[in-house]
Amino acid sequence: MSGSGLRGLLGRGLRQRAKRVLGPLLRRRAPRRVDLPLSLWRLERDAAGGLRLDGVELASLLDRFGSPLHLVDAARLAGNAERFTARPPGASRACEVYSSYKTNPVPGVLRELHARGIGAEVVSPYELWLALRLGVDPAAIVYNGPAKSEASLAEAVGRGIGLVNVNARTEIAPLAALARRLGRRVRTGVRVVIPGGWGGQFGERIDTGAALRAYEEARACPELEVVAVHAHSGSEIATRAGLDGFLDGVLAFADSLRQRLRLEVQILDLGGSLACPTVSRIPERAQQMAVTFGCEPVPRPPEAVLSIDAYVARVAERIEGHCAARGIPPPRVFLEPGRALTGNAQMLLSRVVQVRDPDDAGMTWAVLDAGINVAETVRGTFHQLFPVVEPPGAPRRLHRLTGPSCMQGDLLYPAWELPALSVGDAVAIMDAGAYFVPFSTDFSFPRPPVVMLAGGVVRPLRHGEAFEDLVALDEGLGRSGAAGGAAS
Amino acid sequence: MSGSGLRGLLGRGLRQRAKRVLGPLLRRRAPRRVDLPLSLWRLERDAAGGLRLDGVELASLLDRFGSPLHLVDAARLAGNAERFTARPPGASRACEVYSSYKTNPVPGVLRELHARGIGAEVVSPYELWLALRLGVDPAAIVYNGPAKSEASLAEAVGRGIGLVNVNARTEIAPLAALARRLGRRVRTGVRVVIPGGWGGQFGERIDTGAALRAYEEARACPELEVVAVHAHSGSEIATRAGLDGFLDGVLAFADSLRQRLRLEVQILDLGGSLACPTVSRIPERAQQMAVTFGCEPVPRPPEAVLSIDAYVARVAERIEGHCAARGIPPPRVFLEPGRALTGNAQMLLSRVVQVRDPDDAGMTWAVLDAGINVAETVRGTFHQLFPVVEPPGAPRRLHRLTGPSCMQGDLLYPAWELPALSVGDAVAIMDAGAYFVPFSTDFSFPRPPVVMLAGGVVRPLRHGEAFEDLVALDEGLGRSGAAGGAAS
Repeated sequence: MSGSGLRGLLGRGLRQRAKRVLGPLLRRRAPRRVDLPLSLWRLERDAAGGLRLDGVELASLLDRFGSPLHLVDAARLAGNAERFTARPPGASRACEVYSSYKTNPVPGVLRELHARGIGAEVVSPYELWLALRLGVDPAAIVYNGPAKSEASLAEAVGRGIGLVNVNARTEIAPLAALARRLGRRVRTGVRVVIPGGWGGQFGERIDTGAALRAYEEARACPELEVVAVHAHSGSEIATRAGLDGFLDGVLAFADSLRQRLRLEVQILDLGGSLACPTVSRIPERAQQMAVTFGCEPVPRPPEAVLSIDAYVARVAERIEGHCAARGIPPPRVFLEPGRALTGNAQMLLSRVVQVRDPDDAGMTWAVLDAGINVAETVRGTFHQLFPVVEPPGAPRRLHRLTGPSCMQGDLLYPAWELPALSVGDAVAIMDAGAYFVPFSTDFSFPRPPVVMLAGGVVRPLRHGEAFEDLVALDEGLGRSGAAGGAAS
Repeated sequence: MSGSGLRGLLGRGLRQRAKRVLGPLLRRRAPRRVDLPLSLWRLERDAAGGLRLDGVELASLLDRFGSPLHLVDAARLAGNAERFTARPPGASRACEVYSSYKTNPVPGVLRELHARGIGAEVVSPYELWLALRLGVDPAAIVYNGPAKSEASLAEAVGRGIGLVNVNARTEIAPLAALARRLGRRVRTGVRVVIPGGWGGQFGERIDTGAALRAYEEARACPELEVVAVHAHSGSEIATRAGLDGFLDGVLAFADSLRQRLRLEVQILDLGGSLACPTVSRIPERAQQMAVTFGCEPVPRPPEAVLSIDAYVARVAERIEGHCAARGIPPPRVFLEPGRALTGNAQMLLSRVVQVRDPDDAGMTWAVLDAGINVAETVRGTFHQLFPVVEPPGAPRRLHRLTGPSCMQGDLLYPAWELPALSVGDAVAIMDAGAYFVPFSTDFSFPRPPVVMLAGGVVRPLRHGEAFEDLVALDEGLGRSGAAGGAAS
């Protein structure tokens, strides 16, 4: 054994001993995690400890559709949609809402939202295609992002899309040229970055004057009907103060457009960024304590997060107040919610496929059939986890839950107390409606089905992938049935 | 604006000024990145600056197959396979090699490897199915991992699989029961964790005695033919010292199996973990310097990494020497290479879809059509990037390269000098043959095609996804053509 290898061994041995001794001490001293209330997700436990939604036993869904399984709660989805689209008390009108397709692109979910008057916010040629395929009125589509292809823009403009927000100044001239060729005018906005906000690859900065110059350039193009200011907060909006700071930046810029360019903005497109109340980033230190010592991470209190109702009410209040003070009519307000709209309306059910002997720190490692392949966002983010069946009075013990893949990093829950798990037991990972499905991979396992529960009735939205589906596009194996011949 | 918002603004403003001033200073002082030699990938530049592989202009492949595009270099793949399977000078025999399916599951790639005498290392029911579908002799399949289903084990055992490595003690009794039901004996190994090594959800630890107990338990099952010790290093093997330390741990355990259980191990299965010489983790500080100040990350020198030849030679030398000293016949040696086998035999070509005005720190942001959706592993890992065309003498400037998605984190190259990019220009991301395809998602964009270049001839291996493919399993849209009716 080499010197460095020996040092490595010693270091590792000492670290392991420290973990064994310190872990229980630290766990006793750390703030104790308490399960968030089942009612936040409309869940109940029956007398046998089985988790139910609208009276339907979740365990029965796994039996029927297999595991893992995405389950959409139609009532919660509809409720979120209604809250976003409601006219707040005292406001002159409601916000206009466009679902962030990238956050949850499952057609069955999108249809439910569209049926409730929500439009489509798309950021790629595929998402534009999907919105049109789902029958969304082109006027109810907003096309954003830094990667709009010319062909997709031609389609969008040709069909009279509601709004195109350019991501950067350099997008303006090509868009105008395209519109000229098509003989159309395009309703256009520019994505801007408020002072102090994060921009990166997105938007033109207000503080450097770049945003104003972009508006000047866009207004000089007769093919562009410049109607909107588009902004995202860039970081999560969880509090009224955070929202106010963001709105201040947007409203001040609308004022300067009016004052300096005599441009009366018709639309304020405020993007997304509203938090899902029951999801929070686990601070790095808490994550380390969980991984190293088995201290359970504690969530941000859901009641500390701005609700959808409070969010839309505050948006209306601030914007209408701002305009009333200036004697101008309030603009239309567009919202592009993602995680706040769909996040808590979906859960991921998963079965245990392996349970190991407790390790020498007393932790039980269990392997789920859902891991980073379908729940990548759970790493480093608090998502409430419930046992699908928890017999009354069953003692809990500390588990580490990993995914099924052969990859060290496939560790979803480094520390979580649960009744002793056995192979075949199931858990429910909550708030799986944002960035779970679109971030899913085929890493060693096919992607699972999505079903929706509505009024006690379950119907499939998306079927799970069969093994054959994973090679459907491969030469010699796929649906084409081609013999794999050379095509050069 | 709230107080905390104001502080945030101030802080942000100061930070931005610091970046503008410090960035150029730090960049001048930092170690300078130099492109790794094109020849490491058998690439050449023609007189016009076009990148060519086997005489084929890469730009022409993008024109023909679209962008982004995975390009497999058949010669390099074959060369890597031959090096792994070659009998090292002085060794009595070659290692037996099993391709890690999870690392690169493209059937066209796997077929090339199987045609060169390489078997299949599978870690899921899907991967087992794929190996059998590709016609791999069941005796040339090793089944690993913590998530083997009972049905897949029954298939594997029934067809006479070469080796099943149990991941944990708790897997032993169910495997024996299955074999008993099927009336078969199963060639079995146990995954172990060498002292000081990392285990996590994988393997039984040697240092606690758990590994030895697992072998005792397995040997007590008449249905299990205990033939193998299975171990992974748990961390990347990049040096001879690292390899030696790992082999020491494995050989010492084989000795104790012989001494304490009188078990003569027939097979040492050494797993994977050999590094790809041109890929290295970017240290956290270097990554921060790149993101904050535009300092280009510098790679680990490829020559500092154990080559495939040196690796297999050292494995044979140490194992045969160890056994000769004890007067015992050397065991068969199984290898399960992943990144070292396929990593550098594939590249990802991608076009620029948006270029922004230089920011106030002088960096040019460019948006690629490949991002975290298809190249997630590039974040935090050094992957050489080449412009697909670089006109001779063209000056370089500092770029930030992002992917196409609407997500802040879609930043692939925070700092990389390139000739000034325009929309439509292309880059080649090297070493895309490991964990690119299996980690790919449908996040806003369909997954790209994979083509193989062999002897100057290009042929498709996997077709790119069409928009329709992304909804093929959705009710009311998919291939089934079903009207989306309820199925409850």
